[in-house]
Amino acid sequence: MNQAQLLAALAPEIEAINRALEANLTTHVPFISQVGRHILLSGGKRVRPLLFVLSARLCGCRSNHLADFSTIFEYLHAATLLHDDVVDAATVRRGTSTANTIWGNQAVILVGDFLLAKALSLAVTTDRLKVLQVLAHATTMMAEGEILQLLHARNLDLTEEEYFEVIHRKTAVLMSAACQIGAIVSGAPPEQEEALARFGLNLGLTFQLVDDILDFTGDERQLGKPVANDLKEGRITLPFIAALKRADEAGRRRLRELAREVRPEHAGEIRDLLESCGALEYARGLARKYTRAAQDHLRLFPECPEKGYFWGITEMLLARTS
Amino acid sequence: MNQAQLLAALAPEIEAINRALEANLTTHVPFISQVGRHILLSGGKRVRPLLFVLSARLCGCRSNHLADFSTIFEYLHAATLLHDDVVDAATVRRGTSTANTIWGNQAVILVGDFLLAKALSLAVTTDRLKVLQVLAHATTMMAEGEILQLLHARNLDLTEEEYFEVIHRKTAVLMSAACQIGAIVSGAPPEQEEALARFGLNLGLTFQLVDDILDFTGDERQLGKPVANDLKEGRITLPFIAALKRADEAGRRRLRELAREVRPEHAGEIRDLLESCGALEYARGLARKYTRAAQDHLRLFPECPEKGYFWGITEMLLARTS
Repeated sequence: MNQAQLLAALAPEIEAINRALEANLTTHVPFISQVGRHILLSGGKRVRPLLFVLSARLCGCRSNHLADFSTIFEYLHAATLLHDDVVDAATVRRGTSTANTIWGNQAVILVGDFLLAKALSLAVTTDRLKVLQVLAHATTMMAEGEILQLLHARNLDLTEEEYFEVIHRKTAVLMSAACQIGAIVSGAPPEQEEALARFGLNLGLTFQLVDDILDFTGDERQLGKPVANDLKEGRITLPFIAALKRADEAGRRRLRELAREVRPEHAGEIRDLLESCGALEYARGLARKYTRAAQDHLRLFPECPEKGYFWGITEMLLARTS
Repeated sequence: MNQAQLLAALAPEIEAINRALEANLTTHVPFISQVGRHILLSGGKRVRPLLFVLSARLCGCRSNHLADFSTIFEYLHAATLLHDDVVDAATVRRGTSTANTIWGNQAVILVGDFLLAKALSLAVTTDRLKVLQVLAHATTMMAEGEILQLLHARNLDLTEEEYFEVIHRKTAVLMSAACQIGAIVSGAPPEQEEALARFGLNLGLTFQLVDDILDFTGDERQLGKPVANDLKEGRITLPFIAALKRADEAGRRRLRELAREVRPEHAGEIRDLLESCGALEYARGLARKYTRAAQDHLRLFPECPEKGYFWGITEMLLARTS
């Protein structure tokens, strides 16, 4: 199945998710819908809700509520995006002005809190305490991950281990929860639940690694944000950590110098330094490794359309350019 | 029972709550404990955890986990305080520097998220889905209340009804949830659960009304913040709304003028204007009315020490001066 076929096959699911995202954003306060819609409907790949829906279907679930339940993960994700953008004082996301630029930090912090609360309210409607348990744990880990990232800001001595601790918590745990909860709402046996949790975790690590590679190698218009934006904002990611290990003395000195103040005109030089010392290839290799690990956890499941979609998604997320 | 006797009787509960607040603040990231302890252990009356513990005992619960469960409400409350202080750019709370002044807005937003997640994780340990349902609903309402308050900022045409909508959501709903969840973890019958939810709601309305009166009439050192701070920050509260209705033409004009830029030297004049037109007495009357309504909901329960404590707490919160 090529990417066009995959996207065509998933289109009805994504449409159902988008409808549910609008329908469940009910609130007593119209202003909240306005800010919520801005962050929810200005793009986004719906990766997390899709992971949930496909996991549930892979476990044989045929419930009509899957699209509604899937919004839990997008609302939670949107809540963290809103708070992240305030924390980073970000002005552009997905090529559009960030909510904090339009409505101010105050409103955006509170709408983030609202979306988190909404996610929980929806999680309660699954009528399974275990869903709340996994979600509460994921939410705690995500907050810890964001705080670790903040504490590590501009630390050029960050280790690969510390980097993985951050991305595990801030990204992989929610994707893992989306998959695991798909299994839980289906009443799947423990080994399927475990396999999907691990599938999601490895997929999440790949997803963040690719994000961090694209930050250096991507196209500004495709990314919807400036190149080397992470480095500029003080987030030290794997390609840069690897380059500080692999580059020669002069390269390392230059990279440390460039990290001090990242200017748009330096993006090309930084990318070339990362490429020439093999750091980007090293990072790509890790992304491939985690993709294979994710795919391995699918073996447990019999052949079916959903398994094929999952396989295609892992390949697509690995190969993506934005 | 006088206030000294009441506080002596409650001291062991409050000590157990304080120990549980420290013990349950476990995290992988020591920095989070540091910020968390600052907001949690720098004073605070422990009203919400106490409401929970006493409600559970009133319903006959003798579980050893009550102190641990009670931290849910203090962590959730602390999370909203952290976000509020960022939203209000507050520098002083309870006479101490706010966390955002010490560690910056970014860290404080994220530690707020962590505390909210922690509260949920603890709620899951009650093993009752209904607890999560009430809590998720309360969290949603609280976020809406905070947003409404922000949208109403500096609106001198705010109605009494709009004011009550805000304080119902931002304050009363959590106190109501603490009481209701006390009944739920005890497996109390629906009429007791309902009575405690309403008791907490009315107590919460009193609590906020008294807070808003004290903002004008209290002593700066006792309050731990400047007098007329709400008005200065743009929060239009009941005493001011009532005064804009009750004062004569000249008084109304002067109040509107003073609201534009609140200076410390005007605090006395504002208080006198509110007092002379009867606005403060009107607000005090409403606080008494909600206290009586709260007390009415206790009638359902047989006489016991906890009922006496609750009665005493309602009187104490009504009569408090800080």
